[in-house]
Amino acid sequence: MSGSTFGRVFRLTTFGESHGPGLGGVVDGCPSGVELGEEDIQRELDMRRPGQGGIATTARSEADRVRILSGVFEGRTTGTPIGFYVENTDQRSRDYGDIMDVWRPGHADYTFDRKFGIRDYRGGGRSSGRETVSRVAGGAIARQFLASQGITVRAYTVELGGIPADVTDPEGASGRPFFSPDPDVVAGWESLVRDVKADGDTLGGIVQVEALGVPAGLGEPVFDKLDAQLAYALMSVGAVKGVEIGSGFGAARMRGSEQNDPMRGNTFASNRSGGILGGISNGMPVIARAAIKPIPSIAKAQTTTTRHGEERTLRIGGRHDICAIPRVVPVLASMVCLVLADMVLLQSRQSLSPLSGLMELDEFDL
Amino acid sequence: MSGSTFGRVFRLTTFGESHGPGLGGVVDGCPSGVELGEEDIQRELDMRRPGQGGIATTARSEADRVRILSGVFEGRTTGTPIGFYVENTDQRSRDYGDIMDVWRPGHADYTFDRKFGIRDYRGGGRSSGRETVSRVAGGAIARQFLASQGITVRAYTVELGGIPADVTDPEGASGRPFFSPDPDVVAGWESLVRDVKADGDTLGGIVQVEALGVPAGLGEPVFDKLDAQLAYALMSVGAVKGVEIGSGFGAARMRGSEQNDPMRGNTFASNRSGGILGGISNGMPVIARAAIKPIPSIAKAQTTTTRHGEERTLRIGGRHDICAIPRVVPVLASMVCLVLADMVLLQSRQSLSPLSGLMELDEFDL
Amino acid sequence: MSGSTFGRVFRLTTFGESHGPGLGGVVDGCPSGVELGEEDIQRELDMRRPGQGGIATTARSEADRVRILSGVFEGRTTGTPIGFYVENTDQRSRDYGDIMDVWRPGHADYTFDRKFGIRDYRGGGRSSGRETVSRVAGGAIARQFLASQGITVRAYTVELGGIPADVTDPEGASGRPFFSPDPDVVAGWESLVRDVKADGDTLGGIVQVEALGVPAGLGEPVFDKLDAQLAYALMSVGAVKGVEIGSGFGAARMRGSEQNDPMRGNTFASNRSGGILGGISNGMPVIARAAIKPIPSIAKAQTTTTRHGEERTLRIGGRHDICAIPRVVPVLASMVCLVLADMVLLQSRQSLSPLSGLMELDEFDL
Amino acid sequence: MSGSTFGRVFRLTTFGESHGPGLGGVVDGCPSGVELGEEDIQRELDMRRPGQGGIATTARSEADRVRILSGVFEGRTTGTPIGFYVENTDQRSRDYGDIMDVWRPGHADYTFDRKFGIRDYRGGGRSSGRETVSRVAGGAIARQFLASQGITVRAYTVELGGIPADVTDPEGASGRPFFSPDPDVVAGWESLVRDVKADGDTLGGIVQVEALGVPAGLGEPVFDKLDAQLAYALMSVGAVKGVEIGSGFGAARMRGSEQNDPMRGNTFASNRSGGILGGISNGMPVIARAAIKPIPSIAKAQTTTTRHGEERTLRIGGRHDICAIPRVVPVLASMVCLVLADMVLLQSRQSLSPLSGLMELDEFDL
Repeated sequence: MSGSTFGRVFRLTTFGESHGPGLGGVVDGCPSGVELGEEDIQRELDMRRPGQGGIATTARSEADRVRILSGVFEGRTTGTPIGFYVENTDQRSRDYGDIMDVWRPGHADYTFDRKFGIRDYRGGGRSSGRETVSRVAGGAIARQFLASQGITVRAYTVELGGIPADVTDPEGASGRPFFSPDPDVVAGWESLVRDVKADGDTLGGIVQVEALGVPAGLGEPVFDKLDAQLAYALMSVGAVKGVEIGSGFGAARMRGSEQNDPMRGNTFASNRSGGILGGISNGMPVIARAAIKPIPSIAKAQTTTTRHGEERTLRIGGRHDICAIPRVVPVLASMVCLVLADMVLLQSRQSLSPLSGLMELDEFDL
Repeated sequence: MSGSTFGRVFRLTTFGESHGPGLGGVVDGCPSGVELGEEDIQRELDMRRPGQGGIATTARSEADRVRILSGVFEGRTTGTPIGFYVENTDQRSRDYGDIMDVWRPGHADYTFDRKFGIRDYRGGGRSSGRETVSRVAGGAIARQFLASQGITVRAYTVELGGIPADVTDPEGASGRPFFSPDPDVVAGWESLVRDVKADGDTLGGIVQVEALGVPAGLGEPVFDKLDAQLAYALMSVGAVKGVEIGSGFGAARMRGSEQNDPMRGNTFASNRSGGILGGISNGMPVIARAAIKPIPSIAKAQTTTTRHGEERTLRIGGRHDICAIPRVVPVLASMVCLVLADMVLLQSRQSLSPLSGLMELDEFDL
Repeated sequence: MSGSTFGRVFRLTTFGESHGPGLGGVVDGCPSGVELGEEDIQRELDMRRPGQGGIATTARSEADRVRILSGVFEGRTTGTPIGFYVENTDQRSRDYGDIMDVWRPGHADYTFDRKFGIRDYRGGGRSSGRETVSRVAGGAIARQFLASQGITVRAYTVELGGIPADVTDPEGASGRPFFSPDPDVVAGWESLVRDVKADGDTLGGIVQVEALGVPAGLGEPVFDKLDAQLAYALMSVGAVKGVEIGSGFGAARMRGSEQNDPMRGNTFASNRSGGILGGISNGMPVIARAAIKPIPSIAKAQTTTTRHGEERTLRIGGRHDICAIPRVVPVLASMVCLVLADMVLLQSRQSLSPLSGLMELDEFDL
Repeated sequence: MSGSTFGRVFRLTTFGESHGPGLGGVVDGCPSGVELGEEDIQRELDMRRPGQGGIATTARSEADRVRILSGVFEGRTTGTPIGFYVENTDQRSRDYGDIMDVWRPGHADYTFDRKFGIRDYRGGGRSSGRETVSRVAGGAIARQFLASQGITVRAYTVELGGIPADVTDPEGASGRPFFSPDPDVVAGWESLVRDVKADGDTLGGIVQVEALGVPAGLGEPVFDKLDAQLAYALMSVGAVKGVEIGSGFGAARMRGSEQNDPMRGNTFASNRSGGILGGISNGMPVIARAAIKPIPSIAKAQTTTTRHGEERTLRIGGRHDICAIPRVVPVLASMVCLVLADMVLLQSRQSLSPLSGLMELDEFDL
């Protein structure tokens, strides 16, 4: 049960399905005094909209207007839960008779049926990619808090359909198709996407997320290591099949003398650790990568089964994305924001210091 | 704070450091009636002892005798918390003056100092590999519960220092050096380990964990996906830098038509998903892999810093392992056992059925 | 931080303030297959509306129409989170200059200022009684689940302003002013309320909540005793200053021979325990009582302080209730529903039994 | 499941039964740098030992020597989990054939059997009063942390067997029989205890707990109100049947003008609120009271049932206490310490302030 709440003290609880009235969530535990308006959330939501990624995503118009329902007063958070809501506006009713009983390969149709015994057959329901609207909204709130702490998070695509990018301009990635950190690879990616689409197929890629300005000391030594929480956060996003930190799977082929980062003064001369040692941030940029599988809805013929045990050949038509990238890029950044906001708040009293966090009376006169 | 408890309803809380009196833990939430004796835990603890892995691990004698302190009566769990304890017996006192102020590269010395401001300088303390004794003990209890549900978990090494194994005999892995699923690769691995050791260096590898007999329906649709929880569990183990499920990072280079598993009847014709769709188990074997970095304690010279900001060249001598494999193999299997026990218990009332789990009066007469 | 989520596996997260756009919440962890429509929630919300309690509450019209935003498909829960929302419709804008800096005695104005440093001065904000709208909505969902398990919960007023009721007709309480279980006491209570109101004052009372059909075996032996969770749940409601179970404070004056309930066959000959022994339900009705303090907004002159340290005499005019009863009665019942739903779900796998809760394939053909 | 962990960030997990090897626990989340030695825990454990209470408790010798197993280095906490253990030394083996099948009235025998289907019939097992050893040990650690924050907690008996105390000397209570705050009532209480004992019966009482030095601002507005958490904590102790805060059940009979505490300057002129408004501490002493039921083991004849459904007359002989007071007094104080330590840590980042809690590099040179 449960499973729709993320975080320990900075907590996001989400709800909503692709074909219901809308999606939303509650951020509980955000400190008071953080500057927040609907435009701060809307900006991030607009990043995950179709069209942003150029030709890899469909032209569906999803307005996705967010509304803040509580927890903000005169432009600042009050410390009480922040409710938010995004209406589903693009709901055309149609006949679902052809798919309501068919388990689509690579989708969660079969596993939902086995788990719950009931399923909204009109779409992915709770397992639809639309669920990530709430993650991005919650992540935007975390991002506002992190900004007040000097922490920024960004994400970009380092590989698409097997073609790697050269990370020459990560700052410019958010304004480029596919969130590419490499202006030169875009044309090749676009050409690949066209070919794959023409073939009725889909493709995947690899996304890198970076957190800058993270102080040393975040994360817990054993189960709640910072890297463990990042792995949990990133792997919880639908299309992700792998997560790595720093040198990642490459570390399995290095020698100790190659993987260790030497120290110079109070910093590190390299960052093969990805900014985390023993589960705790070391003051270097935190670097994580996620492997994105190809979208399972393909136009090619597939063999599958119905709820009634009949074999069926299935071709999935309609407006479907070719790749979860670029939509998933802001989602992954949002998840990292949520983890870091939580870790910053958990850390605040890890070592003994005078009681803090309470308002003094004379502060009211300011 | 916190961070030493794992799981939602089947919960393991651990304590203990490498140079303190001992290590232990509490399993809370294990159902009553599970057969459990100290020998069931000892068997798993013996798997992670030095020597098990042949030449990759040191010859230190660690008895690691476990004692059950509560929660078991007449050979069965009672439903109350199961406390357990393993004394640290190999505690030779020595002079730590040379290392108490030096931050060892690749270790958590620096990050612990920045996080807590105080650190047991006599060893890795809480971030030592010895911490995993408690994970294996807790995992052994989970394993007993899973056995009652028809679920088994096993792990083996699929790559060491860049040399891959052929998975020809996974059943035999637990009796073979390095938990190798491939009798033919062992000699090559041993030779590599000897060379690396002679060179004063260390190496890493890749471990695969498989869960068999997992019913369809475990895991939650959004944040608490089964794969997300596995990623969290595996990445929380000290040396792990990457985690993947099913085709993993390979999925990023596949087309949708290659990654999707076709259905035949009520099962799947392939298992690229690694047994999980939409975060929920699909009845196929659950397959995860973890990338293990090389052990950071190397005999080669390294540049580092002291707490007082002085640069220092460091060579780490003494009895140290060359590779976290094979010790880490049973640890990773234990973490998967903990996740699955928790998910089985969480699932039990996901769908509406008559009130269950309560003893009827007439059962007492049996 | 946090603090707006209630429950372990049947979890309610709420948001909303008295003067914001609206209030709502998310129920996560409700099993699939439970019959649920907006009318099931509306029915309970209508119970806490002004007017229901006769003259003790004001005549403000609060429509409080609930909307279900997710988690229900074709009249049944799907196992995914159930989002709900109630708009605040009665929002007249006025000048708050007179109260924005004054700390009202008995209210949370001062403590919110000290905790958060920022406060929505237009009303009680998050500490307003309106917050309980979300509790009642969440409790209504729990009630639907409990009904499927044969458990019912009801509440009534056993004392008002010091005048006790005779519990002669608890079944009829929900249709009677003040949720009185005693037709004969109503006139006296109404007369008292009139007198207190004329005097510019307010009054309190005692509410009893009963759960019928609770099976033996719910609740945990140590910290999460059923009575501990009920005390937590009831004391979390704004006006409550005391909670007791069974003979409660009276038990402190009894002898053991008076307090113990003798057993006859497999049941109990009395219920001084209030249906709970050692923190676990014993199959008898679960009985709890809550002491409700008088509403702090009084028309009489009070001495208080402003944020700027100035002493002030305050008279609170306007439409205010005289007593939290009857509005709080359905709220307390809702909290008990939430506790019991959680405990039923937590219990389901306490003892070893074959894996349950997963759908069999042949069930789909029904 | 679960239920043996208390707290959100300052967390105590306990284990152990009356007739097993011993009892213990883990405190996770205690900040680093707190002064702590075994003597700090032992001092509190000695307070709950038999004999402390004069004639109300039995003369059994329970050494209860605590051992710290982890988390402390050179006299200070390190921020890692603090494991502790107390061996059961007074284990005489005897024949339990006469009681193993009988459900003792007022005890948890029947409910444990219904919940778990298996029970250690040699005593109360997990529901024995001995379980509180772990609470007192954990509370002692919380107390050390609170001392560093200027917060102290004390408890005393305000009523025994219906005879109230005059709270004339609360400071002296810990050195007086029954933790009496009133030197003059002791003789009367002792006389009553003698009479009740001679009669083969037992008695209850009321304990008051006070926390001094609590800053304004602790506790959360909705579910996790400070008073709600205190009610949960106190009601989780075995013999407690009622909890009240400030004027408590008396508030149900007051008018608003009597219950409200007027403000004078930045403090309150009275403390009917018990130091809590809207669930948040207001800077006044926090006052809670718990009603203790009489001990259910009585020498008088009682009617009960066996597991096999046979009616039985039972007289419980042996060394049993007449009253849970005074043993329960330090237990209740410990629970309040645990709540407050948790709330202080949760509060620390409730409002926006510069990142805190991380060690600066230059602090290491001190």
